[in-house]
Amino acid sequence: MNGAESLVRTLVASGVETCFANPGTSEMHFVAALDRVGGLRCVLNLAEVVVTGCADGYARMAEKPAATLMHCGPGLANGLANMHNARRACSPMVNIVGDHATYHRPFDAPLTADTEGLARAVSQWVRIGSSAETVAADGAAAVQAAMSPPGNIATLILPADTAWNESAGPAAALAAPARAAVAPETVHTVALALRTKEPALLLLSGPALGERGLYAAHRVAVATGAKLRTMTQVPRLARGRGRVPIDKIPYAVDRALEVFAGIKHVVLCAAKPPVGFFAYPGKPSMLWQKDAQLHVLSRAEQDVVAALEALADELGAPANVAIPDPGMTPETASGRFSQEGFGATLAALMPENAIVAEEAVTSGRALFPPTYAAPPHDWLQLCGGAICEGLPLATGAAVACPDRKVICLEADGSGMYSLQSLWTQAREKLDVVNVIFANRKYAILQAELAAVGATPGKTANDLLDLGRPNLDWVSLARGMGVEGSRVETLEGFADVFRSAVGRRGPFLIEMVI
Amino acid sequence: MNGAESLVRTLVASGVETCFANPGTSEMHFVAALDRVGGLRCVLNLAEVVVTGCADGYARMAEKPAATLMHCGPGLANGLANMHNARRACSPMVNIVGDHATYHRPFDAPLTADTEGLARAVSQWVRIGSSAETVAADGAAAVQAAMSPPGNIATLILPADTAWNESAGPAAALAAPARAAVAPETVHTVALALRTKEPALLLLSGPALGERGLYAAHRVAVATGAKLRTMTQVPRLARGRGRVPIDKIPYAVDRALEVFAGIKHVVLCAAKPPVGFFAYPGKPSMLWQKDAQLHVLSRAEQDVVAALEALADELGAPANVAIPDPGMTPETASGRFSQEGFGATLAALMPENAIVAEEAVTSGRALFPPTYAAPPHDWLQLCGGAICEGLPLATGAAVACPDRKVICLEADGSGMYSLQSLWTQAREKLDVVNVIFANRKYAILQAELAAVGATPGKTANDLLDLGRPNLDWVSLARGMGVEGSRVETLEGFADVFRSAVGRRGPFLIEMVI
Repeated sequence: MNGAESLVRTLVASGVETCFANPGTSEMHFVAALDRVGGLRCVLNLAEVVVTGCADGYARMAEKPAATLMHCGPGLANGLANMHNARRACSPMVNIVGDHATYHRPFDAPLTADTEGLARAVSQWVRIGSSAETVAADGAAAVQAAMSPPGNIATLILPADTAWNESAGPAAALAAPARAAVAPETVHTVALALRTKEPALLLLSGPALGERGLYAAHRVAVATGAKLRTMTQVPRLARGRGRVPIDKIPYAVDRALEVFAGIKHVVLCAAKPPVGFFAYPGKPSMLWQKDAQLHVLSRAEQDVVAALEALADELGAPANVAIPDPGMTPETASGRFSQEGFGATLAALMPENAIVAEEAVTSGRALFPPTYAAPPHDWLQLCGGAICEGLPLATGAAVACPDRKVICLEADGSGMYSLQSLWTQAREKLDVVNVIFANRKYAILQAELAAVGATPGKTANDLLDLGRPNLDWVSLARGMGVEGSRVETLEGFADVFRSAVGRRGPFLIEMVI
Repeated sequence: MNGAESLVRTLVASGVETCFANPGTSEMHFVAALDRVGGLRCVLNLAEVVVTGCADGYARMAEKPAATLMHCGPGLANGLANMHNARRACSPMVNIVGDHATYHRPFDAPLTADTEGLARAVSQWVRIGSSAETVAADGAAAVQAAMSPPGNIATLILPADTAWNESAGPAAALAAPARAAVAPETVHTVALALRTKEPALLLLSGPALGERGLYAAHRVAVATGAKLRTMTQVPRLARGRGRVPIDKIPYAVDRALEVFAGIKHVVLCAAKPPVGFFAYPGKPSMLWQKDAQLHVLSRAEQDVVAALEALADELGAPANVAIPDPGMTPETASGRFSQEGFGATLAALMPENAIVAEEAVTSGRALFPPTYAAPPHDWLQLCGGAICEGLPLATGAAVACPDRKVICLEADGSGMYSLQSLWTQAREKLDVVNVIFANRKYAILQAELAAVGATPGKTANDLLDLGRPNLDWVSLARGMGVEGSRVETLEGFADVFRSAVGRRGPFLIEMVI
């Protein structure tokens, strides 16, 4: 058994069931080994940005890592952006990146590149396989690293000769540590702060955004009057009827600052200290007020759900509190696109237990309130701000959850970075309805340019405008084997969406706005 | 005048005329400055892999750098693969990469990433702007670094506050050094080796592949009987009737080794020592024979053309030698695709002074011989082996040379990595005929898998197969505003190609093979 086969067998033994792949020459022994080992579903993607985005979406829903298979140097480089997004989402991921045979590297052949440096830029764990005898153990360590809380990017670089030489066979799986408990003193300290009844805000991320975490946070809110918010972008949020409704910190700095106005205690629940996405002249980086105190209830890698429950208990919150009634499920809307109308239509027509993968950018900022009353669903967003993830995130989630309908809400400018995802959806017959918000511009950048105080002239306008020619997303989808339809009104959207969710397989709706 | 404007004015004063851009928020002051400064043509691309591939194609034809404008961290990461290719082609490139304001970086906002580390992985020159007063001088230094022989990747990271703060105005352009002359003793030593009349091979790259360099090399060959070859991939090769015909070192190691069989002297003319693209079990990395001598006539950064001319003179080669007659221009071919038939048809129909940007991979390996008799043209290939450059290379070349017809020969698998190039071609009304070789598989990897000795099973086959569903390139092109047509025979290709080269503007031909 060669090194590649020992590694594949080890990955499978370690619980890895899925591999998103875009291999090159140096990965051929790994590919050949896949034929000899069962238990690993391989999904081909036509660009690496899709590979890593899929792995992120998969990990968020499967709660375990997929493997990726990418080519050395530049191949890995093409996948880094969504590795960055996955890192920010605390998604576990195990990247297998081929490289030149150890003895071939010094010759500086054309594809030779700093694979290790590239991997280190976005991975928490990097190892270069040094021999065929040890790559199996390296693979087990990679899965362990990926699964260690809060979830990490582990990258194993596999020189070709460590794949093709004779190995010592597979390695045993290595258990990852459990989430560490938050110390009772920490819970007690936070409880003391909240008991002052000074204005407080619980900022939630990670597992706190699951149904149990949200419920515990809600008990705290009921007991103390504290506000609940998520970070601006959520890795995975349990939403819809029966779940605690919670809004995000707005992206725009001025609006984000309003959320923290008067707040004296900010309690971080697996969330980072809230800062602006970007700096702007004359505006602060930190969103909390100078006289406010930051409390860390739980770091990202700790057991935030248990900590929230302990906090609620310590505060004497009743075990059973009512979840706010989101009101009637909205009716579908009509007329031109508006976020409120779109959100209402989505809530009205969303099937039970859907997964929403959203990278709608300016078209998605106000979609949370109108969908509180939708059927229960999970909502995923890109967490690293690197816009190229909506379509692959949806694709990976659909691989992880074949029995759930996936709805991808994607901005047109964003979608163009990873449109090759549609082909994967077609090949794997994934159950995804892709909605492209076609405003035909980089609207977020138009707003950012205005925030800079500039009146755009012709050059700036050209750089922020996606028209001339307009993208025809229905043709783009057809080119990759996905059926699609263009709509210009919300009633048109409702008609097509109703039909699309009523069938299986990928579909694309271009919503002209 | 803010830092951004001082930088833009400095780039223009330094001779930069074109900027390929995919900006984000941290680049908005730079974008706003573009409106206030004339002389810089800005070309929007919808993915960074297109930005840097265009800059490479532009630089090869314009013989000077374009600027690029990319977003921090992951934005840059998406552009690294074609920066790698450009580096291997010795193309000058000036990357302006925005980043967080200096004081905002420590807060680790979602998009914060190791922009510098990513830049260093593929740039010969990296600088982080430290203040608005100095970024103009940084820009002048970046252009100088890019233009220093043999041509370099220069990356200037521009923290947002160095763009928006008040500057000291533009900086003066800095001259780049000329190519250093090769020492007469070096020429003399190589001449002594060639005078032995032992079998010799001149390996050419860089400026040696221009008309003058090829002619001087041909004089040497006539005088000594030495063989001429280029590296496996050429940055820019002057070809066609009236130019010295020269073939490449084949990609396949066994065939490459045959080229060097019996060769006792390998003379490197701006080329690197020839090594295999990849290592294979039991096969050598070095292509030259153990008893052969390697001679460096000229390093990449030296004046290789003058060195070849001096060598020819020293060898007493006549000043005027006949260029081999390539024979009649071939007739167009018919029937199913073959490389010979396609090459003949291309030669028959290629307009005068065309630029061929080729990333045809397995479909392009035998295209040189049948096109020796084509009208004079330039042939560009990706030089770093990172397959994602054909379409953007053609796009950038067309921006550089609006009066020349550009023909892009692209493999279907390769084209999918950067298909967004087609939109840029449509928007800029570039005169490019894109030919997609639709074999509907990663044929090169099927060959590599066979080279590994594996008989592919279902999993391996699935990972190397682009069918199910077939890509419909005509729809993909339409989706981005480019007209296209599908052909299944060479006579069908000839008809459509003849018509496509007879009109202006982008067109796509899907050649099913």
